[in-house]
Amino acid sequence: MTTESVSSGLFDPDTTRKAIDIALEDFLTQKKGELEQTRMAGFPDLVAEFLEGGKRIRPLLALAGWQASGGEAGTEAVIRVAAALEMFHAFALIHDDVMDSSDTRRGRPTVHRTLAGTRRDRHDESFGTSAAILVGDLVFSWSDELLHFAGLSPDQLHDVFPLVSRMRTEVMLGQYLDLQATGELTDDIETTLVVNRFKTAKYTVERPLHIGAALAGAGPQTLAACTAYAMPLGEAFQLRDDLLGVYGDVRETGKSRLDDLRAAKSTTLVALALRACDADQAARLRALVGDPQLDADGLEEILAVFAATGAADAVESMIHDRYDQALRALETAPFAPAAITTLKHFARTAIWRNS
Amino acid sequence: MTTESVSSGLFDPDTTRKAIDIALEDFLTQKKGELEQTRMAGFPDLVAEFLEGGKRIRPLLALAGWQASGGEAGTEAVIRVAAALEMFHAFALIHDDVMDSSDTRRGRPTVHRTLAGTRRDRHDESFGTSAAILVGDLVFSWSDELLHFAGLSPDQLHDVFPLVSRMRTEVMLGQYLDLQATGELTDDIETTLVVNRFKTAKYTVERPLHIGAALAGAGPQTLAACTAYAMPLGEAFQLRDDLLGVYGDVRETGKSRLDDLRAAKSTTLVALALRACDADQAARLRALVGDPQLDADGLEEILAVFAATGAADAVESMIHDRYDQALRALETAPFAPAAITTLKHFARTAIWRNS
Repeated sequence: MTTESVSSGLFDPDTTRKAIDIALEDFLTQKKGELEQTRMAGFPDLVAEFLEGGKRIRPLLALAGWQASGGEAGTEAVIRVAAALEMFHAFALIHDDVMDSSDTRRGRPTVHRTLAGTRRDRHDESFGTSAAILVGDLVFSWSDELLHFAGLSPDQLHDVFPLVSRMRTEVMLGQYLDLQATGELTDDIETTLVVNRFKTAKYTVERPLHIGAALAGAGPQTLAACTAYAMPLGEAFQLRDDLLGVYGDVRETGKSRLDDLRAAKSTTLVALALRACDADQAARLRALVGDPQLDADGLEEILAVFAATGAADAVESMIHDRYDQALRALETAPFAPAAITTLKHFARTAIWRNS
Repeated sequence: MTTESVSSGLFDPDTTRKAIDIALEDFLTQKKGELEQTRMAGFPDLVAEFLEGGKRIRPLLALAGWQASGGEAGTEAVIRVAAALEMFHAFALIHDDVMDSSDTRRGRPTVHRTLAGTRRDRHDESFGTSAAILVGDLVFSWSDELLHFAGLSPDQLHDVFPLVSRMRTEVMLGQYLDLQATGELTDDIETTLVVNRFKTAKYTVERPLHIGAALAGAGPQTLAACTAYAMPLGEAFQLRDDLLGVYGDVRETGKSRLDDLRAAKSTTLVALALRACDADQAARLRALVGDPQLDADGLEEILAVFAATGAADAVESMIHDRYDQALRALETAPFAPAAITTLKHFARTAIWRNS
């Protein structure tokens, strides 16, 4: 197999995903060996199961960034860094589920729910929560190990660590903004978009691209071109998530359509509806969104307001605008041609999806 | 100032503590600048306040390990690595307080209690808990930054990172064992000592020594000598903590004498009492320890059982044995003579203390 075929093979999403999964499996097998004689012996399998349902968006984008910046050889280390991003994401989700008290993730019980059932003969919520905080901490530490032992050169580690560090800070800021905004409905679109930018656009799209590109020695121009594509696409990605959160099919999304509304997540969709509705509709929205007992009838009533105010259509149109903007950014991006194809494909599947 | 005077100055605990504090302050000042325009702008000050009350045990031991292994020059990078250990410890305590639902730490409200009061006009426990999980995550990330940007050579980072990683895993395992044991009183001394070893002896004493020693290029013999000193001393340190937890003066320890007993923390002290007591005393202990309403009268009753069964004296005697064992380990340790002095002094102050 020539370097080129390995390299082009690696950028096929299925092959890449497979390579990332193998890196994650190898790492967890190693951890299983290390923890074998301890009470945490079951944690690597717990994390492996958790990782199963993931889309591998961030690692795939890291590989795309690497490819965009002309990266070809040395991909094993890059695959491991990409796997580190997926591991970090698992940490972020485990803690996110604790903070949101979510029951399900990817169609399965969340880690804290699972752990609540592991204590002798009784279900123990508080033990589950504490243990899930610890598992999250451990998985954060594991993501750092994957990065460190990826086999990067000291120069590569030097270039990429500041970006990893910024990514960590940004997603934590995004989570904090989300936490502050949750439960306080706002009609300020910009406020909801700022949360979106930190929590999703930068974390999910921009930084993974940057990290991959930096590993291939990208300069400021390439990084700026990554940003020009990533930010509108990332915003559109989250807006799609917001829509799927209330309109999606639970069999495909793996989460209840009531969760975001019961928690009064501050989304652009709700902000647009609040901005466009009359006093009666506003009163109903404020009564229903955030009601922990919200049921299917309440959901229908909310969706009716989203339709009547044009909020749902407006979000769909924002998604279109941002998708177009991301594709336009690719037209002038100084990326390797194969990367342009990868990123166009990614944009399509990220935006036009059901789960 | 000659290298020698800088070097001997650095190993004076007060001077070293000052240098570590400056490294922490400098880092937090930098973070304040980076987060200035964000909603997390207040976090660096929050963390600075939290750090104020710390004893700096782990960084001081890292410096002692460095000194033991013949380290002299290049101490600025070593100071920053030591500061990274203190930052990591802040992360561990912030999450520990969330898991234990503790109200106070170092005589002040815990981070989650403080944050519960920062949300507009109402006290919000659940917001405080979630925000404290995030602040902890951020502080973990900061400790990693301090390590990375410490200015180590690639070889030093290569030698020390695996130890840092093991330290992280071990303390998380210790916390998990503690979590499992809490609320399930045991009379098995060994079970309580295993928790002690991971949560305290390895994390607080052994690994910081190892990390400092590895930075100075220590070989296996030096690392083994660190372990021989660290493990008995670390166990004694935790046993002293257990005693102070119920006998200490709250004005000095900064925490209530009821906390550990109300939470039914599984300590060697309780295990010894359970092992030596009669059926009536056992029934009283099992009724009182773990009672969230435990009051001063209940505490007196428990202390009476600790006295009558000889459990308190037995713990005191275990502390003595381990202290002696640690000092004996120093007699044959291949350490620089100045380090022996430092470590003897440390052992004394770590074991014979009121807070």
